[in-house]
Amino acid sequence: MSASTPSSRTPVGGPHLAVIGGGQLARMMAQAAVALGVPVRLLAEGPQVSAAQVVPDTTVGDYRDLETLRTVAAGCAAVTFDHEHVPTGHLHALAAEGHPCRPGPEALVHAQDKGVMRARLDELGVPSPRHRLVENAEEAVRFAESIDGLPIVLKTTRGGYDGKGVWVVASAGDCADAFAAAGSTGVEVLAEERVDFRRELSALVARSPSGHLAAYPVVESVQRDGICWEVTAPAPDLDADLAVEAQRIAMRVAAELDVTGILAVEMFETREGRVLVNELAMRPHNTGHWSMDGAVTSQFENHLRAVLDLPLGSPACREPWTVMVNILGGEHGELSEDLYAGYPHVLARDPRLRVHLYGKEVKPGRKVGHVTAYGDDLEEVRERARHAAAWFRGDLGMESE
Amino acid sequence: MSASTPSSRTPVGGPHLAVIGGGQLARMMAQAAVALGVPVRLLAEGPQVSAAQVVPDTTVGDYRDLETLRTVAAGCAAVTFDHEHVPTGHLHALAAEGHPCRPGPEALVHAQDKGVMRARLDELGVPSPRHRLVENAEEAVRFAESIDGLPIVLKTTRGGYDGKGVWVVASAGDCADAFAAAGSTGVEVLAEERVDFRRELSALVARSPSGHLAAYPVVESVQRDGICWEVTAPAPDLDADLAVEAQRIAMRVAAELDVTGILAVEMFETREGRVLVNELAMRPHNTGHWSMDGAVTSQFENHLRAVLDLPLGSPACREPWTVMVNILGGEHGELSEDLYAGYPHVLARDPRLRVHLYGKEVKPGRKVGHVTAYGDDLEEVRERARHAAAWFRGDLGMESE
Repeated sequence: MSASTPSSRTPVGGPHLAVIGGGQLARMMAQAAVALGVPVRLLAEGPQVSAAQVVPDTTVGDYRDLETLRTVAAGCAAVTFDHEHVPTGHLHALAAEGHPCRPGPEALVHAQDKGVMRARLDELGVPSPRHRLVENAEEAVRFAESIDGLPIVLKTTRGGYDGKGVWVVASAGDCADAFAAAGSTGVEVLAEERVDFRRELSALVARSPSGHLAAYPVVESVQRDGICWEVTAPAPDLDADLAVEAQRIAMRVAAELDVTGILAVEMFETREGRVLVNELAMRPHNTGHWSMDGAVTSQFENHLRAVLDLPLGSPACREPWTVMVNILGGEHGELSEDLYAGYPHVLARDPRLRVHLYGKEVKPGRKVGHVTAYGDDLEEVRERARHAAAWFRGDLGMESE
Repeated sequence: MSASTPSSRTPVGGPHLAVIGGGQLARMMAQAAVALGVPVRLLAEGPQVSAAQVVPDTTVGDYRDLETLRTVAAGCAAVTFDHEHVPTGHLHALAAEGHPCRPGPEALVHAQDKGVMRARLDELGVPSPRHRLVENAEEAVRFAESIDGLPIVLKTTRGGYDGKGVWVVASAGDCADAFAAAGSTGVEVLAEERVDFRRELSALVARSPSGHLAAYPVVESVQRDGICWEVTAPAPDLDADLAVEAQRIAMRVAAELDVTGILAVEMFETREGRVLVNELAMRPHNTGHWSMDGAVTSQFENHLRAVLDLPLGSPACREPWTVMVNILGGEHGELSEDLYAGYPHVLARDPRLRVHLYGKEVKPGRKVGHVTAYGDDLEEVRERARHAAAWFRGDLGMESE
């Protein structure tokens, strides 16, 4: 008997795929890769991160180190990403050395830098909130005065996620505070109109290097404190023309920016019935997790197929309604520290519920899993998903049942 | 940068589950375990077997060695199995030392030994083909004469699978040949009536130690050369009373034998409209693979939930018809040696197709994957699944498209 090491295992079959970053997105890509028979080689931040728990061929290292990236990419058919933080220069170097990066650096920069993204969308005539790059609090205030006045939104152009690096500012003092916080990160600041939106939508597409596109149904997403909280697929009561417009925008951006893999376009639906692009992400996205249980082909499988330039699978809904609710680390009681302890209640209450846990340590506010419910009756489906997520968070006491 | 070893990774979260055996059933259990957040510890026959490719915490060793089993079981909440070949004595030893084996040795022996199984089903009054343990060819012939005459079926009581260890004998000479072959295996021989069946059915149930049962819809299975070839869920045109009878038999056997995990009961549907139990398997089963894409909860997830004594998920069909066809290693052309090369055609032809490859080397007749199609029109669904499997086997030339 001997413990085997990753290097002693050379799986039979298709080309290897390098995945940079070991979070839950990489974990769920790996899950999809099992079925496709595609061997994944992972570069993880640590030996116990979410994806490293389920990928034997894991290297622990720093994605900011080019030599590490080269080692992981060697012999792989393509390199793809769990996050958007790999330095653009490194991606150019890998590409120049013959390692196909998917998405490639020219595309990915639009998901890495909000200033670049806004400028490109303007060129394409894609509707965005009004915006301007600003260098100090005074410029931010002048921008506000040029539109409808304060409040406005200030964002660092790089490095923000899940609400980090974003401030809603209502006064000159707020602007100064935001710049003080942003200044420490050493990046530019984008000032944007604060959109009085009806709701947030998300349009996901998968695109292969050959140009095959698959557009998922447009979904409604609910954010809390800048973090995705709940997604309903398809977006309820969405005007059919507006749904097509949202999908057209996502397909056009994917094609114009030469995105490969999943592109998520987060949008505001305004009260006047328009859509404005808020953010771009070029990887499987939280607003697409519903597809694992609710679509014919999950966003994770279509991401893999796209980056390997295989024909894409149908993105169609399998059910009238699918609702995904994130499980965030809670602050209440024992359940919130031991997700497994939530199973007896949650699984027995709802035999049709789908649960996805990420193997992450529970910390308040951290995304540690998600639940999905589907069915014919939207209110019932929502209640099932919300209840289960609340139980895992520890927000429901035993007495509420 | 450093390569991490399995021992350096202690996943966060629920209890560990030990899985003995590294075939495709363990691989698909591991896939389900990713979503549940359950860390799997695998005992594999070699470093490159199907499940070892996707389970970081893999030990390579011999399941016939008790000390190896002890090491793998240590610290795990339960021990379960990819196959039924672990020696019964070892299972008793593990159980006595406090390692819950699921299924336990008293149950598993009925899937390991066909003689024990037949005797127990007789006690329970569960209908089986007529049968008798025989010690030589002459006894086999006398058994045949006591029923409808030759041909009859001879089976080794232990060690057979996928048609191995089974002979249809039509003459005294055939009986002698079968005994010559069986004799070399050192096991007993069961003589059975050759049932003139209309078709084969399979009834799967999951059962937890607490006694929670989930019965999957009864499916129709088609075997070729003793190997599962195609499964249709639910079984078309099955009499409703007979479907209930088949499910009742499976539930009763699971409860009476104290099975934990999945029990598959393979049955003959006779031309007179009865069901006779052919075989038992106490693990996820080929006739349940359709459930990965066609049921609310797959057999693999319900197996994990059952052996961990968690509430079971709904076994209901998600679609009117689901058809699974095995991909067997072919003997025709290049495609049959490189499954990945089949993707461009198969995926582009049918965007709704679901493919599962096992990472196994392709050898003629070997199970190397399966495909699943689902939808409203049974003939169309069958054609889609059959075409894809044939393509992967290399049985279709380019010209046929």
